[in-house]
Amino acid sequence: MNILIIGAAGMVGRKLVEKLAKDGTLGGKKIDHAILHDVIMPEAPTQAPFKTECRASDFSQPGEAEKLVASKPDVIFHLAAIVSGEAEQDFDKGYRINLDGTRYLFEAVRQIGGGYKPRLVFTSSIAVFGAPFPDAIYDEFFTTPLTSYGTQKAIGELLLNDYSRRGFFDGVALRFPTICVRPGKPNKAASGFFSNIIREPLAGHEAVLPVPEDVMHWHASPRAAVGFLIHAATMDTAKLGNRRTVTLPGLACTIAEQIDALRRVAGDKVVARIKREPDATIMKIVAGWPRNFNAKRAQDLGFQAEKTFDEIIRVHIEDELGGKIA
Amino acid sequence: MNILIIGAAGMVGRKLVEKLAKDGTLGGKKIDHAILHDVIMPEAPTQAPFKTECRASDFSQPGEAEKLVASKPDVIFHLAAIVSGEAEQDFDKGYRINLDGTRYLFEAVRQIGGGYKPRLVFTSSIAVFGAPFPDAIYDEFFTTPLTSYGTQKAIGELLLNDYSRRGFFDGVALRFPTICVRPGKPNKAASGFFSNIIREPLAGHEAVLPVPEDVMHWHASPRAAVGFLIHAATMDTAKLGNRRTVTLPGLACTIAEQIDALRRVAGDKVVARIKREPDATIMKIVAGWPRNFNAKRAQDLGFQAEKTFDEIIRVHIEDELGGKIA
Repeated sequence: MNILIIGAAGMVGRKLVEKLAKDGTLGGKKIDHAILHDVIMPEAPTQAPFKTECRASDFSQPGEAEKLVASKPDVIFHLAAIVSGEAEQDFDKGYRINLDGTRYLFEAVRQIGGGYKPRLVFTSSIAVFGAPFPDAIYDEFFTTPLTSYGTQKAIGELLLNDYSRRGFFDGVALRFPTICVRPGKPNKAASGFFSNIIREPLAGHEAVLPVPEDVMHWHASPRAAVGFLIHAATMDTAKLGNRRTVTLPGLACTIAEQIDALRRVAGDKVVARIKREPDATIMKIVAGWPRNFNAKRAQDLGFQAEKTFDEIIRVHIEDELGGKIA
Repeated sequence: MNILIIGAAGMVGRKLVEKLAKDGTLGGKKIDHAILHDVIMPEAPTQAPFKTECRASDFSQPGEAEKLVASKPDVIFHLAAIVSGEAEQDFDKGYRINLDGTRYLFEAVRQIGGGYKPRLVFTSSIAVFGAPFPDAIYDEFFTTPLTSYGTQKAIGELLLNDYSRRGFFDGVALRFPTICVRPGKPNKAASGFFSNIIREPLAGHEAVLPVPEDVMHWHASPRAAVGFLIHAATMDTAKLGNRRTVTLPGLACTIAEQIDALRRVAGDKVVARIKREPDATIMKIVAGWPRNFNAKRAQDLGFQAEKTFDEIIRVHIEDELGGKIA
């Protein structure tokens, strides 16, 4: 089978590529060929049992999406997006990439026609929700995004549902939890601290906690994220009916619970590297974010996330630190 | 004040124009100038105490929206749409008019800038909802449209919310009930029978009822529709916060209740003109439609609809039949 990954140079995209290269199969079928695409040139996996082709272009430019799907991939992972902060700063760029780019891709698939109907997995986000929330956001709760990014993702979900209902492709839209622990350097994303306070202390560095410890949020590991994508690419979509958007499972926990888990897994010495520096701006942003979900439907559909934050930390230590704590 | 009405030649658009011409004011402010636009040339009201300018063009063509807003109208009513059946038959035309046209309009307003921030009232629809439903659809129920039309309206709502949140205009999106009794000739819309079985018998003609009498649906009169638009154009939008879409009030009633009301208002002779001709295709379409709502938020915001179907029939007799029943 042939696979196309758009957004293959991002953190989740790279991990998905690694996993596919390790497995060599998807849903029990041998992978023959993978196109890895991003706006910057993605890296090919070092050892893949299939042919990989890396491409860099701006898929929001007219004509680019057509080139990407011309070989009629059986499965398309659409992970490409301008992130929340940038989409808020640059209104036009956010709509161009996150809305127009997505629509060009969907249209390019539709225009092939002739019975071509790939599985198309689209990463959406819990940013489609906006405060005020119920205690746990349920599967039928409405989408009132408070960012342009969330708006663009909610529109992508609607388009994916309509194109799937029409039979132009076989789509699944996944509302990802906040991925934690993100590997790599601390970044300036407002949500960065959720990962920073775990990753940096485990690596022997200090990390800044800008919000109170009672802040609750919704997490899953990078490993769970890859699992979500693979499950969406291989599941029986008949079970989705005409509701092809899935709010994924995750783990709701407070910062205090995150820190307790870090203490259990790595000890007081590591926890002591977290410095409290309250930041009113970040507190205000975080106050508008979802805290907790009841993701019953996704669980019934077989999507799985971690059950404890200890497990999320251990996944990071295994996958990123070779099992070693500094 | 200056007003722009896009979709001014439609049934609701014409009634809105008549009402504004009769009042001469909107929200207590004198109307100086009105641009009436549609894809076919709208009729100017016979006696308006303000200057009216009628224009016909395809507002989904690049550049047309800019011309419409160039005079910086204070209030914009965006009522233009390809209807449900046509948007389902012609995928490209539906997206071009209902999505691209709407987005061009919003962008044209944004591009004026310099503090220009009109009130913009957009007609959405209960077609943003798709079965299965709760017994009464509540204000926080999610949007899972089962038509391309409903998808395009739900996207319009999301865009309106984001553009309003960003301060580009002051938007209100209204999810209209099915308007009943629609004046004019019977049309082939699947929902046409709700009006046909009242309008035709009152005018001395037979009408066909294609569904069982226990079918329940959600209605408001054309007069209520105009009231919704005027309230949305003049209300304090601060009360909406960042949730600028309103599911309007209406009246949930069954066909049996419609017929009982017709009997009370017009007698057995009129009711006898309804012929039962079950139509499996229409029954199947109607089964996917919303039946009932709890429109608490709209009521709290001051939107008003009829409380009985008798009242809806009397509005039709007053406004369309000069008080006379055949």
